[in-house]
Amino acid sequence: MQLGLSVSDSDVSSFTPLVVLELADDTKAEAITWLLNRIRDKQQNGAQDDQKPNPNVFVVGSTLQRLLNGAEDVGLFKEFQDGTMRGFTYANRESFKDFNGDGEGFLSDAECQYIIKHELDTLRAKNEEHVPGYPKLKLYPGKSVVRRLQSKGVLIQYFPLHNKEDLKRLSFSWYKKFKLSLQPLDDIRHYFGEGLALYFGFLEYFTFALVPMALIGIPYYLFDWEDYDKYVLFAVFNLVWSTVFLEVWKRCSATLAYGWGTLSRKKAFEEPRAGFHGALGFNPVTGREEPVYPSSKRQLRIYLVSVPFVLLCLYLSFYVMMVYFDMEFWAINIYNENPDIATSILLFVPSIIYAVVIEIMNLLYRFAAEFLTDWENHRLESSFQNHLVLKVLVFNFVNCFASLFYIAFVMQDMVLLRQSLATLLITSQILNQVMEAFLPYWLQRRRNKKVHKRMRRLMGDKELPLLGQVQLETEMNTYLGTFDDYLEQFLLFGYVSLFSCVYPLAAVLVVLNNITEVYSDAFKMCHVFKRPFSEPAMNIGVWQLAFETMSIIAVVTNCALIGLSPQVKAYFPESDTQLILIVVAIEHVLLAFKFILAFVIPDVPKHIQVNLAKLEFDSLEALKKRVSTHLYIESHWGPMFLLWTQTVGIFQRS
Amino acid sequence: MQLGLSVSDSDVSSFTPLVVLELADDTKAEAITWLLNRIRDKQQNGAQDDQKPNPNVFVVGSTLQRLLNGAEDVGLFKEFQDGTMRGFTYANRESFKDFNGDGEGFLSDAECQYIIKHELDTLRAKNEEHVPGYPKLKLYPGKSVVRRLQSKGVLIQYFPLHNKEDLKRLSFSWYKKFKLSLQPLDDIRHYFGEGLALYFGFLEYFTFALVPMALIGIPYYLFDWEDYDKYVLFAVFNLVWSTVFLEVWKRCSATLAYGWGTLSRKKAFEEPRAGFHGALGFNPVTGREEPVYPSSKRQLRIYLVSVPFVLLCLYLSFYVMMVYFDMEFWAINIYNENPDIATSILLFVPSIIYAVVIEIMNLLYRFAAEFLTDWENHRLESSFQNHLVLKVLVFNFVNCFASLFYIAFVMQDMVLLRQSLATLLITSQILNQVMEAFLPYWLQRRRNKKVHKRMRRLMGDKELPLLGQVQLETEMNTYLGTFDDYLEQFLLFGYVSLFSCVYPLAAVLVVLNNITEVYSDAFKMCHVFKRPFSEPAMNIGVWQLAFETMSIIAVVTNCALIGLSPQVKAYFPESDTQLILIVVAIEHVLLAFKFILAFVIPDVPKHIQVNLAKLEFDSLEALKKRVSTHLYIESHWGPMFLLWTQTVGIFQRS
Repeated sequence: MQLGLSVSDSDVSSFTPLVVLELADDTKAEAITWLLNRIRDKQQNGAQDDQKPNPNVFVVGSTLQRLLNGAEDVGLFKEFQDGTMRGFTYANRESFKDFNGDGEGFLSDAECQYIIKHELDTLRAKNEEHVPGYPKLKLYPGKSVVRRLQSKGVLIQYFPLHNKEDLKRLSFSWYKKFKLSLQPLDDIRHYFGEGLALYFGFLEYFTFALVPMALIGIPYYLFDWEDYDKYVLFAVFNLVWSTVFLEVWKRCSATLAYGWGTLSRKKAFEEPRAGFHGALGFNPVTGREEPVYPSSKRQLRIYLVSVPFVLLCLYLSFYVMMVYFDMEFWAINIYNENPDIATSILLFVPSIIYAVVIEIMNLLYRFAAEFLTDWENHRLESSFQNHLVLKVLVFNFVNCFASLFYIAFVMQDMVLLRQSLATLLITSQILNQVMEAFLPYWLQRRRNKKVHKRMRRLMGDKELPLLGQVQLETEMNTYLGTFDDYLEQFLLFGYVSLFSCVYPLAAVLVVLNNITEVYSDAFKMCHVFKRPFSEPAMNIGVWQLAFETMSIIAVVTNCALIGLSPQVKAYFPESDTQLILIVVAIEHVLLAFKFILAFVIPDVPKHIQVNLAKLEFDSLEALKKRVSTHLYIESHWGPMFLLWTQTVGIFQRS
Repeated sequence: MQLGLSVSDSDVSSFTPLVVLELADDTKAEAITWLLNRIRDKQQNGAQDDQKPNPNVFVVGSTLQRLLNGAEDVGLFKEFQDGTMRGFTYANRESFKDFNGDGEGFLSDAECQYIIKHELDTLRAKNEEHVPGYPKLKLYPGKSVVRRLQSKGVLIQYFPLHNKEDLKRLSFSWYKKFKLSLQPLDDIRHYFGEGLALYFGFLEYFTFALVPMALIGIPYYLFDWEDYDKYVLFAVFNLVWSTVFLEVWKRCSATLAYGWGTLSRKKAFEEPRAGFHGALGFNPVTGREEPVYPSSKRQLRIYLVSVPFVLLCLYLSFYVMMVYFDMEFWAINIYNENPDIATSILLFVPSIIYAVVIEIMNLLYRFAAEFLTDWENHRLESSFQNHLVLKVLVFNFVNCFASLFYIAFVMQDMVLLRQSLATLLITSQILNQVMEAFLPYWLQRRRNKKVHKRMRRLMGDKELPLLGQVQLETEMNTYLGTFDDYLEQFLLFGYVSLFSCVYPLAAVLVVLNNITEVYSDAFKMCHVFKRPFSEPAMNIGVWQLAFETMSIIAVVTNCALIGLSPQVKAYFPESDTQLILIVVAIEHVLLAFKFILAFVIPDVPKHIQVNLAKLEFDSLEALKKRVSTHLYIESHWGPMFLLWTQTVGIFQRS
C-alpha cells in the first residue's frame, strides 16, 4: 500500500473530503487513470495520464457549484422562502430559505455525499469495449462502470467519510447525556440522511406506544391475574392500539418526511439501481438512454426459482420445528422421571437451542434471499427492497412464530406457550444485542489498535489527521442498511401483538429492549460502522404494510386465543358452537372496525395535504406555460445536462 | 311568455346555440339586464340596459376563441401530437392532434356546454349588495350569482340544448339497429360526456360479466340441483368472479378515462360547488379568492343531525320489516287452514307489498338524504357525492337486504328465502323500469303534444326550428345524474352476489334486466330527459368502493350460507364445532386471497402508467424551468385570467 497525498484538479484550500474510493492493491495504472478521468469529467472520456504512480485509495470532493447543480439533478427538495418544500433548482437558488452568499452550508454533508454517490453510480460505459488494462473486463454501453469494477473486485468499496466535529456534537446530543429526552431526529437526518432518521423516529415512536401496554402488563403478570374477563379487555385494547398506532405513525412519518423534503420526491424518476443490467434502450418515461430488461424474464426468474426456493426453506423450517418438539418431549420425560433442579433447568434447554437455531437459520436465509433478489435484476432499488423484504418476512414470520402457533392452536398448551414465548423472546433479544453492537464493537477496537500501531510505525509521529481517518474508516465494517433493524422490530411487534394476552410481560421486555436498542444502535452508527450513504426515504416503505398485515393477523390470533381459554369456555358449558359463533362475530366486527378506522384517519395531516396540492397546482400551471415554450426548452435541454459534471475535485494519495 | 328572437353581441351566422337559461315569467327587467351584462362580461359588471322588453328564455352560445380559452381554464385534457393526453393550452393549440385551422370541431358539443356551465357557475357577486330590482335578494362577495337566483326561483333552470343531427346519428348507432353490438361509448361520451359514458360502459361490462354466472345458473335452476357440493363450487366461483370482476373493471375504466383525457385531471383543483357558501377567503392551494367554510361546523352538522337522522330511518326500516313478517305469517296461516289456489297466490302478496313499500321508502329517503347533504355545505361536488352516496347506500342496503339476512340466518328458512328473494328482485325490477323510463316517456309525449299545439296556435305554420326546440326541451324532465342508475346496479349486484347460491336464477334475471336497461336508459337519455351537462369523470368514483365492500360482505354471507345448508351439515353429523371451524377457516382464506388478488392486479394498465409518469415527469421538469422565470410569470398571470371571459354571445328572445 502506498501512502502520501497529492492534490489534483482542485483548489486545496476549499477542498472538503467527502467520499472515499478504495481500489484493489494490484489495480493496473491505466485503469486507475481512466477511472479518475471519467470521474473528473464524464464527457471528456478516455484521456490517459500515465505519469502518476499507482495509488489505491482516493478521496473525492467537489466544488460547491457542482454540488448545487447535482442537488438539482437528484431532485432534492429544500425549504422555499414561503415555507413550503420545493424541488431545488440552481437557477432559482436565491429563493430558497437558507441559501446565503454562494450557498456554503446550504447542503448538509449527507446530501453532498448522496449527490456524489449518485454521480459515481451513474457513471456509465459509453464506447469503451473493456476497462483499460483489463481486456477481460468487458464493458458495453449503459453498463454502470463503478458497479462493474466492484463486482470484479477492482473497486473494493466506496463510502462517505465521517465528519469528526459533527459526529462529536451529534453523539453528545444523541446518547452521551444521561437524561431522558427525545432523540435529535433532525440532527440524525442531517448527518445520516432521512432513511436512518426515520428508522430512529419509528423506534422511538414504537417504544413510547408500547409504554401503556407495558404498564398494564406488569400488574397482570405480578398478581398472576388468570381472570380471562380482564384478558378479553386486554386483547381488545391491544387490537385498537395496534390499529391506531400504525395509523398515527403514518401521519407522523408524513410530517417528518415533508419537513425533510422527501415526501414529494417521485418514485417513478428513480435512477435504475447501480447493479441493474440489460440491453441499452430508452426509458419510456424520461426518454433518456438507459439499460432495459424485459419484465417477463424477471417474472420467470421469480416464479421458477425464487418461489420454489422459499417454499423449500419453509419446509426445512417446519422440519426443524418438529425436531424441537421431539427435544421438548424428551426433556419433559426426563423431568417427570426424576424431578430435581438439574432436570428442571433442562426443561428450558430445548427452547434456548431452538431460539439459537432460528436466529442462525434467519441469518443464512437472509444471505440467500439477498443473492436471489439481486439475481432477479430489479430496475429500481425500491422494487428490489420490496421483493427482498417479502421473501425475508414470509420466512422469518414462519420460522419465528410457527412453533408458537402450533403450541397454541394444535397442542392448546398455554403453559408451554407462555414458557416457549418467554424463552424465544429473551434469547433472541440477547443474541441480537450481542451480534449487532457488542461483537462488532469489540472487533472494531482490536482493528483500530492494529491500524494505529501500523500508522505510527510508518509515519513516526507526523500528524496526518485526514490520512489516519481514511485509513481507520476504510477498515471499519459496512452498515448494511436499516433492513435488519426493522426486521427485528417487526418480530418484536409480532411477539407483542400476537401473544401478549397470554404473556403480558412481553410488552415490558420489548420496551426495555428498545431503550437499550436506541443507545446501542446510536453507538454502532457513530463508532462501529462506516458512515452509510444517506437514503432519501419518504416513509418506512414496505414495512408499513408488513406491520399492518401483522396487526390483522393479530386480531385473528387474539380472538382465537380468547375463544380457547378455559375461563371463557366455562361461560358456555353446554355448547362450543355458540362460543365459536360469538368469537367469530366479534372478530368480524373488530376487523371491520379496523378497516373503517384505517379509512377514516387521513394518512397525511391536513396542512401538509394543502402544501402538496399547492405544489402540484403550481407544477401543472407551469406545465401549461412550458408547453407553449416547448421548442425553446427542447433545444436547450441537452447541453444543460452536459454542463455540470465537470469539476469534482480529486485527492489522490501517491 | 313572450316569443321571438333577437340576437345581441354576436355574429349571427357563426352562432351555435348551446345552453338555455330560463328565468321566471315575472322577472324584473333590470335584473335581467344586469344578469345578461354579467354573463357577457364578468369584468365590466353592472352596466344597465333597460331598452329591451322582458324575455324569459335565453340561449347562450360562444365564440370559438373564448371556448378554447375556457377549455384551458377548466383543465381539459386532449390528445397531443405524440398520442399522449395533455392539458390543453390555447398558446400551444397547434400541437394538439385534431386541431385544424381555427379549431372548428376540436371541442365536442358536450365539452363546449361544460365550459359554458363552468362559466355560469363561477359567475360570482362582487360589490353588488343585492340583485337589481330585488332589494331582498342580498348578494355578498363570492356568492355564486346563478345559484342565488336559482334558489330564489328567479332563474328556473339552465340546461344544454340537444343537437338534433348528432342525436339522430347517436340514437341510431346506440339502440335503433336491432343487431347485437357493443355500445358506441365514444359517441356517447362525445354527446353526453364522460360520466354518463362510464356508466354505460360499466352497465355493459357488468352485464357481460354476469353471463357466465347466468349460464351456470340456468341448469342449476332447471334441474333443481339441490346437491350442495356443487353449490359450494358455485359459491367459490361467485367469490373469485366478484373480485376479478371489480379489479378488471378498474383497469377498463382507467383505459377509458385515459383515452377521454379525464384520468389525469386533478381533484384538488375542482372549483367549489355552485351551491357552496361561506365567508370570502383565500383558497390555500390556488391562492385565489373564494368562499371558505370551516370544516368543524360541517362535522357538527354531520354528527349531530345527519347521523341521528340516518339511524332513525334505519330503525323505521326494521320496524317495517317486522310488520312484513307478521303479514307473512298471517298469509301462511290462512294458506295452511285452507290450501287452495287463491290462498297460494295470497302467499306472494306480503312480499310484493313489502317490495313496493321498500321502493317507496328508498325514494323518500333519497330526497331527505339529498337535502341533508346539501345542507352540510360540502365544498367540492365530489365530497358532496361521497356523503350522499354513503347515506343512501347504508339505508338502501339495510332496507333491501335486512329481511333476507333475517330469513337466512335467524329463521334459517331457505324456502322462504328463495321465494322472498325472487319476489323482491322481480318486483323491484318491474317497478324500476316503469318508474325510470315508461312513466316519464308517457308524460313526455303528452307534454310534447300540448307544446306542439300551443306553438301552432301562436305562430301559425312558420318554421322556427330553434324556437320550437327550445320550447320543447324547456318542458322536458331533468335527468338527475347517474346516481339512481348506479344505485340500481349496486342493489342488483347485491342480490346476485349475496344470495345467488340459494337462487341461481338471480343472475339470469339480472342479465335480462340489464339488457332491457341498456335500451330503456339509452332511450330515456335521448328522448325523455333534457340533455344533461357533461361531467368529466375519471372513474365510477365512490361506487367502486361500494361494489368492493359488497363483494367482501358477499364472501362472509356465502360462506355462512354454505355452512347452514343441511347437505353440508350432513358431512359432520357428530359435531357442529368442526363444521363451523372449517367454514370460518375457508372464509378467512378466501378473504386473504381476495385482498392479495386486489393488491397484485395493478389498477392502471402498464402503458397508461408509463404515459402518466411521463406527463408528471414533464410537469416537474417544467416546474424547475418555471421557478427560474418565476417573477416574469407572476406578473403576467393575473391579466391572463381576466382576458378570456369576454365574448360569450347571447341570443335573446324578445
